[in-house]
Amino acid sequence: MSFSDKLQAAWKASNSLVCVGLDPEPRKFPNGFRDAPGGIFEFNKAIVDATRDLVCAYKPQFAHYAAHGAEQQLEHTIDYIKATAPNAIVILDSKRGDVGSTAEQYAQEAFERYGADAVTVNPYLGRDSVEPFLKHTDKGVIILCRTSNPGARDLQDLHVGPGKMLFQHVAETVAREWNAAGNCMIVVGATYPDELADIRRRVGDLPFLVPGVGAQGGDVAKVMAAGRTAAGTGLVISSSRAILYASGGDDFAAAARKAAQDLRDSINAHRQAPVVSSR
Amino acid sequence: MSFSDKLQAAWKASNSLVCVGLDPEPRKFPNGFRDAPGGIFEFNKAIVDATRDLVCAYKPQFAHYAAHGAEQQLEHTIDYIKATAPNAIVILDSKRGDVGSTAEQYAQEAFERYGADAVTVNPYLGRDSVEPFLKHTDKGVIILCRTSNPGARDLQDLHVGPGKMLFQHVAETVAREWNAAGNCMIVVGATYPDELADIRRRVGDLPFLVPGVGAQGGDVAKVMAAGRTAAGTGLVISSSRAILYASGGDDFAAAARKAAQDLRDSINAHRQAPVVSSR
Repeated sequence: MSFSDKLQAAWKASNSLVCVGLDPEPRKFPNGFRDAPGGIFEFNKAIVDATRDLVCAYKPQFAHYAAHGAEQQLEHTIDYIKATAPNAIVILDSKRGDVGSTAEQYAQEAFERYGADAVTVNPYLGRDSVEPFLKHTDKGVIILCRTSNPGARDLQDLHVGPGKMLFQHVAETVAREWNAAGNCMIVVGATYPDELADIRRRVGDLPFLVPGVGAQGGDVAKVMAAGRTAAGTGLVISSSRAILYASGGDDFAAAARKAAQDLRDSINAHRQAPVVSSR
Repeated sequence: MSFSDKLQAAWKASNSLVCVGLDPEPRKFPNGFRDAPGGIFEFNKAIVDATRDLVCAYKPQFAHYAAHGAEQQLEHTIDYIKATAPNAIVILDSKRGDVGSTAEQYAQEAFERYGADAVTVNPYLGRDSVEPFLKHTDKGVIILCRTSNPGARDLQDLHVGPGKMLFQHVAETVAREWNAAGNCMIVVGATYPDELADIRRRVGDLPFLVPGVGAQGGDVAKVMAAGRTAAGTGLVISSSRAILYASGGDDFAAAARKAAQDLRDSINAHRQAPVVSSR
């Protein structure tokens, strides 16, 4: 199945644009998970069990596993999602970017070792650094465009031509050139709704991965107004901390479920464009 | 010791600007290493044993470990370098780049888990994505500027102001702002000597990590003429495949030693500026 079909199916099956970011921080885990061997996997498992009917995607953030030497728990987490939430897209958020021969190794890591459906990629090294990912047409390649952090402005907002900033150039390059097989997405932070709207105008229905709602402060109504497509989709909206650590107590899984449900409902309330009365 | 002092000491102790890139590709290993458990570490160990008196640095490329699930062998490799080549700088070449809270996790990975002396970082996300690395003033932060691959042109050569391309802006930003603690380097590919010379003029004595000699075709004489500082240093020149796989037979370690020695000697022949006769 093409990546694009998988994504459509994930949106439809879940009736949701929500992605849960799996960014384990053991010091925030409830007792019993914090110092337990395999605690990261067990925590993730509980989150997946509590949310799988509410989300279209899971997004493990690589750094949170690499810092703790928990690659095997990352593998187990992805295996568990595949086994129990087969419609959900698994996005390995590792923001890879390297020269062609090395990018081949990263593609092998993401798609073969971890079995992810999609991977995030940094565009700074240009097309040949993205090509080894693109050729996996059944996999998603999610290219950083306008990130959610304050420093996004430093390089991404530089003017690279009359009335065109670097992030706009990246968005157009992805839509026009890199997306030939239809397996690209771009990352656009929820914290910049004006930029989100601008990018949507430039790239048609290209799907966006949108981090930055929740802990980073992005506003759901603004994101939806700025970024949704005519079909009411086009967005995979990711929240991590606000779901994972909604409670630090024994009720963390129930609290995570409620946070994911509230986010889904709040998004779904804005999936249709407002009806303009013709009277 | 500051990173800058460590680097100076490494250059001096080895009388070398050579960095060996540790990019294990098991299918290129000699018999006996290829399918052996721990073969990646054993191969690296043999390379380190054969080259430690000839080099100022080792640079394990993260993708080549991640693709094979060989993080533990990467840890062992770095431990082994620390124990047996204490003057050499260990550069974790992982090209990290993520929002601040995640970048903290990557800094923990590079400097605590792996104990690297320096890490490569992608500047696309801006200053706050680099800050968590910079604050480790005893560690090196090596920022991608003009990479060695053909696609480097796609984004890095975009004009971001009158007569200024993105990579030039990055170089100046690092030299002027990010290098306040003196622990920055930038990556400039050997394959672009004109750009190398241009960047050297812009950033004074900021040290460069220079990949792309050897298999990628960069020319040592041109690199030295374009990039060395008045002190005859300023460069960490990295070669991977041309050293590691100089021979695929049982003599691979001796062949690697010879390749490293030839590279060192060829670089050292160009470390002093040509003497202009005053007659």
